[in-house]
Amino acid sequence: MNALNVAEYMHTLGLQARQASARMASASAAEKSSALRALAALLRANVASLQSDNAKDIERATAAGLTAPMVDRLKLTPKIIETLAVGCEQLATMPDIIGEVIGMKQQPSGIRVGQMRVPLGVFGMIFESRPNVTIEAASLSIKSGNACILRGGSEAIESNKALARLVQQALADAGLPSEAVQLVQTTDREAVGHLIAMPESVDVIIPRGGKGLIERISREAKVPVIKHLDGNCHTYVDDPCDLALAVRVTDNAKTQKYSPCNASEGLLVARGVARAFLPQIGAVFAAKGVEMRCDAEAGAILREVADANVQEATEQDWSEEYLAPIISVKVVAGIDEAIAHINRYSSHHTDAILTRDHVHAQRFLREVDSASVMVNTSTRFADGFEYGLGAEIGISTDKFHARGPVGLEGLTSLKWIVLGNGEVRT
Amino acid sequence: MNALNVAEYMHTLGLQARQASARMASASAAEKSSALRALAALLRANVASLQSDNAKDIERATAAGLTAPMVDRLKLTPKIIETLAVGCEQLATMPDIIGEVIGMKQQPSGIRVGQMRVPLGVFGMIFESRPNVTIEAASLSIKSGNACILRGGSEAIESNKALARLVQQALADAGLPSEAVQLVQTTDREAVGHLIAMPESVDVIIPRGGKGLIERISREAKVPVIKHLDGNCHTYVDDPCDLALAVRVTDNAKTQKYSPCNASEGLLVARGVARAFLPQIGAVFAAKGVEMRCDAEAGAILREVADANVQEATEQDWSEEYLAPIISVKVVAGIDEAIAHINRYSSHHTDAILTRDHVHAQRFLREVDSASVMVNTSTRFADGFEYGLGAEIGISTDKFHARGPVGLEGLTSLKWIVLGNGEVRT
Repeated sequence: MNALNVAEYMHTLGLQARQASARMASASAAEKSSALRALAALLRANVASLQSDNAKDIERATAAGLTAPMVDRLKLTPKIIETLAVGCEQLATMPDIIGEVIGMKQQPSGIRVGQMRVPLGVFGMIFESRPNVTIEAASLSIKSGNACILRGGSEAIESNKALARLVQQALADAGLPSEAVQLVQTTDREAVGHLIAMPESVDVIIPRGGKGLIERISREAKVPVIKHLDGNCHTYVDDPCDLALAVRVTDNAKTQKYSPCNASEGLLVARGVARAFLPQIGAVFAAKGVEMRCDAEAGAILREVADANVQEATEQDWSEEYLAPIISVKVVAGIDEAIAHINRYSSHHTDAILTRDHVHAQRFLREVDSASVMVNTSTRFADGFEYGLGAEIGISTDKFHARGPVGLEGLTSLKWIVLGNGEVRT
Repeated sequence: MNALNVAEYMHTLGLQARQASARMASASAAEKSSALRALAALLRANVASLQSDNAKDIERATAAGLTAPMVDRLKLTPKIIETLAVGCEQLATMPDIIGEVIGMKQQPSGIRVGQMRVPLGVFGMIFESRPNVTIEAASLSIKSGNACILRGGSEAIESNKALARLVQQALADAGLPSEAVQLVQTTDREAVGHLIAMPESVDVIIPRGGKGLIERISREAKVPVIKHLDGNCHTYVDDPCDLALAVRVTDNAKTQKYSPCNASEGLLVARGVARAFLPQIGAVFAAKGVEMRCDAEAGAILREVADANVQEATEQDWSEEYLAPIISVKVVAGIDEAIAHINRYSSHHTDAILTRDHVHAQRFLREVDSASVMVNTSTRFADGFEYGLGAEIGISTDKFHARGPVGLEGLTSLKWIVLGNGEVRT
C-alpha cells in the first residue's frame, strides 16, 4: 500500500469499528456469550489449519534469523489454542458488567440520579509477536461490548489473519457485526501512526510490548493510552516484623519468577532487624544465585554470608528493573526513609511492607504512591486474576482512568442516568 | 521574562507542586477543613483590599476597551467574595473522600484485595477572566488533597494574585505547604505551553473557557485533559407521553436560561404526538420569542401558531449549540429515529426522553451515547450540585476517567491495597 492508501484503509477500519460499536453496546449478554462460545468452538475445530498458517510465520521468522526465544513466542501449539478456547469460555460465563446501574439516589429536586456502566466504544490494541494476544484482545472486546482494531506484529501476520477470520465468523454466527473486531491487514508501519490519531473513531489505545514502543505511542497518541511502562517493585522489611514470614515472602517476591513486572527488584530493610534478617535472606539468595547490589551497610552484613554474590550498588541500581536474578538491597532507618525511597525510585507499580506494626502498615498503604500497595504479602500477587478481576486487559502504571491491574471495567465508562417525573429546574 | 526564564519558572512551580502534593495526600481531613475555614475568614477580612486590587484590573480592562459584559465578569464584588467564602465553608463540612476503602474482598489465595481513594497528585487549571475561579479551584484542590497550579487570564492578574496570596496564607495557617496552590505569576503566553507539557510534575489539565482554547489545549497537552467542549443537548418527546409534562419540561429545558451548556438546543417529536404537542410548545416559544428552526413537517404545523418565528432548518442546525433563544425542531418516526439522530448530532453531553413507554425509556437510557441521559425531566438538571456531588470541577464531554458532571472524585484515583498474612504466590 502507498501512504495515501494506508490512510484511507485505516480511516475505513475506523468508520466500520465506530458503526459496529453501537450495535455491540446494545448487544445482550446472551449474544456476547454466544459469540465467545462460537469462537471457542471454531478455535478447537481449526487447530490444524491454524497451525499450518502459523507455520508460514515460523518459517519466515527462522529464515530471517530470529532468535529461538523470539521464534518460540510466535508458536501456536495445540496446547496454546486450547488455552485460548478455554479463556473464551470462561469469559462467556462471567457476569456481564454492561448496563449495571450504581448509586441511584433521589436528590432534593425529586430526580433520581445514578450511573450506568457502558462500553468505552472502540479501542485499538498494538502488540508484538505473540499471536494469542489477537484472541485475548478480541474476546475481552466482545465481552465488554466494545469494538476494537488490532494491530499485531508483522512477524505473526499470517497467524493473526487466520485467528481474526475465526473471530469474525464467530461474531457473524452470533448475529453480531463482524467489524466489531478488525485486524489491520497491512504490516505497513504507517498504519500505527493513523490508528493512534483517529479520535473520531478510536477512543483509547492499549499498547503491549517493549518500553520503547509504549513510550513512542504515548508520546504520539491523540487519544488516551492505557499503558504499562516498568515494574521496579520493592519489598520493605520493617521493624518489628515476623522474620520467618519476611524471609518466605521476600524470597517469593524476588525468585518465584524473575521475568514478571511484579517481581521485587529492590529490598529495603529497617536497621533494627537488618542484623537478624539479612543473613537469612542472604543465604536464600546465595543458594539461588541471586546477585545482591548493596549499600555499604547491607553489604557489610551480606558479605559474611557463605557464597553470597554481593556487589556495591550504584545510584542507577535503585531505579533498575532487572527482570533477572539480581536485587538491590539497602538498609534504612525505618518507615519514613522506606516510604521516601520508594516514592522517589519506585516505578509506582507495586510495593509491599512486611511488618507487625499497625501504624506503619496504615502509613505505608496511605503514603506510598503506587498502583498496588501491600502488607505482609508478595508483590508477585499484583495481577488481575489474583485480584479477582476474572480477566486482565493489562497493568496500568498511570493514575488516570485505570490504575494497576485493569479488568473489563477499564474498557467501560460510567454515564449518568436521571429519572424524573416532570421535574423542572427553577 | 524571556523564554528561557519562563521555562525555568514553570519547571520550578512544577517541582514545588509535586513536593507539596505528597504532604497534601497525607493531610488529615481536619487539616484540610482548617485551611478552608481559614481561607473563608481571610476572604471576609480582606474585602476592601481585594476590591482595591480588583479595581486595577477593571481600570486596565476599561482602558483597553473591553466590552461591558467582559469587564463585568472581572468584578469581585462584596457579594461575590461572600459567596466564595461560603463555598469554602461548605467544602470544609463535606465528607472527606480521601482514604476511603472500597470493595475489600478475600481472594482464593487468602489475600484481601480492595481499593483506596487517593488524590491524583497535581492538576493544572487554565481559565479566563473570572477571578473567582482562583478560589473555586484552590478550594477543590485543598479538599481533594491535591496540589494545583493555576493559570488565570492576564486581564485578572492583579485580582488573582491577591486571591492566591490569601490561599497560601490559609494553607500556611493550617500547617500545610503554601506551594500546594500556586498561581502562575507571569502573563507570558508561553507559560501555558509548559504547564500542559510537564508530565513529571502535572498529572492532569483542566481548561475552562472558550471552545477554541480548550481544543488547542487538548491538542497540545502531553498529559490527560478533563475537558468540556460543547453542549448540543436534545429533548425527545415520545409517543406516548404526558403532553402537559412534555410542554412544561421542554419549556424549562430551552427557556429557563439560554446560556448554560445543558439547555436543550434540539427538540425531536414523535410523529404520533406531533399534531397534539407542537402547537402547544409552539405557543410557549412564540410568547417567549424563541425562534424555531424546523424540518418541513414540524414547520408546517408550527407555522399555524400565532406569532411563531419559524425558520427552515439547515443541516448545520442539527449540530448547533445556539446558547440563545433558538431551537431546532424535527419530527421523527419514533424512538429508533430519535436515538439515531441524537447519536449522530448530539455533542454527547445531555439528552432526555419524555415518555410513558417503559421499553422506550430503557432503550433510550441504554442506547443514547451521552454523558447524561434522562427520562421525563429537564436537561437543565445536568449539573454537579443537582446530582448531589456537593462540588463541581466541571462537566466532562469525554468518556475516559470522568464523564458528565465531575465532582471531587474526578480529582482522585483508586489504588489497589492488598492485605496478607504471609501468603506467597505458587
